[in-house]
Amino acid sequence: MSDAVVSTASGADAQAMTDWIGRRLAQMEAWLAARLPADAPGGLAEAMRYAVLDGGKRLRPLLVLAAWEAVADAEPAPEAPVWWAAGAVELIHAYSLVHDDLPCMDDDVLRRGKPTVHVRFGEALALLAGDALQALAFEWLVAPAWAQREPALAVALARELALAAGAGGMAGGQAIDLAVVGQRMDQAALEDMHRRKTGALLLASVRMGALSAGADAATLAALDRYGRALGLAFQVIDDVLDATADSATLGKTAGKDARADKPTFVSLLGVGSARAYAERLLAEALAALAGLPAHATPRLAALARWVVQRQH
Amino acid sequence: MSDAVVSTASGADAQAMTDWIGRRLAQMEAWLAARLPADAPGGLAEAMRYAVLDGGKRLRPLLVLAAWEAVADAEPAPEAPVWWAAGAVELIHAYSLVHDDLPCMDDDVLRRGKPTVHVRFGEALALLAGDALQALAFEWLVAPAWAQREPALAVALARELALAAGAGGMAGGQAIDLAVVGQRMDQAALEDMHRRKTGALLLASVRMGALSAGADAATLAALDRYGRALGLAFQVIDDVLDATADSATLGKTAGKDARADKPTFVSLLGVGSARAYAERLLAEALAALAGLPAHATPRLAALARWVVQRQH
Repeated sequence: MSDAVVSTASGADAQAMTDWIGRRLAQMEAWLAARLPADAPGGLAEAMRYAVLDGGKRLRPLLVLAAWEAVADAEPAPEAPVWWAAGAVELIHAYSLVHDDLPCMDDDVLRRGKPTVHVRFGEALALLAGDALQALAFEWLVAPAWAQREPALAVALARELALAAGAGGMAGGQAIDLAVVGQRMDQAALEDMHRRKTGALLLASVRMGALSAGADAATLAALDRYGRALGLAFQVIDDVLDATADSATLGKTAGKDARADKPTFVSLLGVGSARAYAERLLAEALAALAGLPAHATPRLAALARWVVQRQH
Repeated sequence: MSDAVVSTASGADAQAMTDWIGRRLAQMEAWLAARLPADAPGGLAEAMRYAVLDGGKRLRPLLVLAAWEAVADAEPAPEAPVWWAAGAVELIHAYSLVHDDLPCMDDDVLRRGKPTVHVRFGEALALLAGDALQALAFEWLVAPAWAQREPALAVALARELALAAGAGGMAGGQAIDLAVVGQRMDQAALEDMHRRKTGALLLASVRMGALSAGADAATLAALDRYGRALGLAFQVIDDVLDATADSATLGKTAGKDARADKPTFVSLLGVGSARAYAERLLAEALAALAGLPAHATPRLAALARWVVQRQH
């Protein structure tokens, strides 16, 4: 992730962002490795750890942490609720990839540059690992280590995550995705699908970080606008990369959308206009940050730029 | 469920239990029907409702309600947290059946007397419906309707459910189940598997009902003993029924365990000794209730008797 950030900022600022991302990624990786189960029965722990560790851009945890830091203007303490929120969001993302790669869904063999979980562990254990990762996400959001002290925050975070993951959010977006194969969609319908399928969890990441820091209503509203624009931009660029990059660069199978005859921003707008649309969404995300204090913006701005300018 | 209760008690008591079960079942069914999504996209709401409504013994919600009433000695108000707890437990159970019936797991076509969800809606939508039901279970446990007033209770209930459903509970038990096909297990290993696979959620049902009513530590400990014995008895009888009943009576495919070469209490002990073991576990469950006030026992006792004496 660091390269793209360096290429889009300059000098001391770019270096500070690169350092911040590197530090938080290392902390998050260690946090996840320490708290994922090490000894669940029947090979389940191994499959869960394989699904989550050693890969992934960790965009969602970084958004949780950046939103928290934007509001709190501090370093998150090692046992702060924000780490549990960041971890829980990543578990939901990881489980969705495991289930999405199953033969009855996208039937994919490559993810995060490795064989997919069902290729490595079999379909049945992949299904269970996904199920157990979702349960673990909610377990982390009510972990006694912090949630007994802050039960109202735990309830608010669990509600954000449940709504983002469920029938009105990610799962609903995936159901639309299944239903529209081979069909034409207009831009409004395509955006509605992606707002649910990927946007809801990205927005929830931003909101959960802000809620963990006790954001006021005006700040939360600004971060909502940022999160919505970033979420849509992420998907537009995903469609562009699926159409233009190779599998080795992506770490997952490229060219799937066209082969599956799925409506995408590229099939609707073409590559050039899709990229231009993503740039407009980036500008919208950055504009939403304008009303926040100066200390709040650099990390969130860097992540939004990375979303649009990434190569994978 | 009512018939077995009538057959094992007598006179006015039996009638009172039959009435109680009938009343709570009707209330629970209406509660679930009113709160399951009616309009999620891509056919998802339809698949979720099909998976949950019009079928099922509702043993777990009845246990939640009976445990609540044992402690509270009152009628649960329409918006009391206990209904959300009962609903959430049933959603986890329903999602586990949907995923368990998938071709990559048990590959079953009949459940609750109807075609399984993937037979009716396709594998991909069945997978998503299960995923969305799990998210909805946690959404219900932090529902603003009550959880904002009682966040500490919401946190406690969500933790019970997450642990029961996750890698150390139900999902872990299912992973063991996959791993031991064709192997011999001793009774301790078999009981450990079932304590996770089905016992954890049955125990959580009892505990979540008791926690919702503010049970003290001694009461919770007694109900734990009841819930553990009942959970194991349930599985012993499940194995007996799988070996002795027909599919029409069960509402699901009979004889699966032997065909799948799975270790069961019947393969380990034989039908007669398995039944006798279930009767001993029933006596243990009833004995655990002895220390509770007299008003607490009839509903929980009736459910334990039904678990062991049921025909399906």
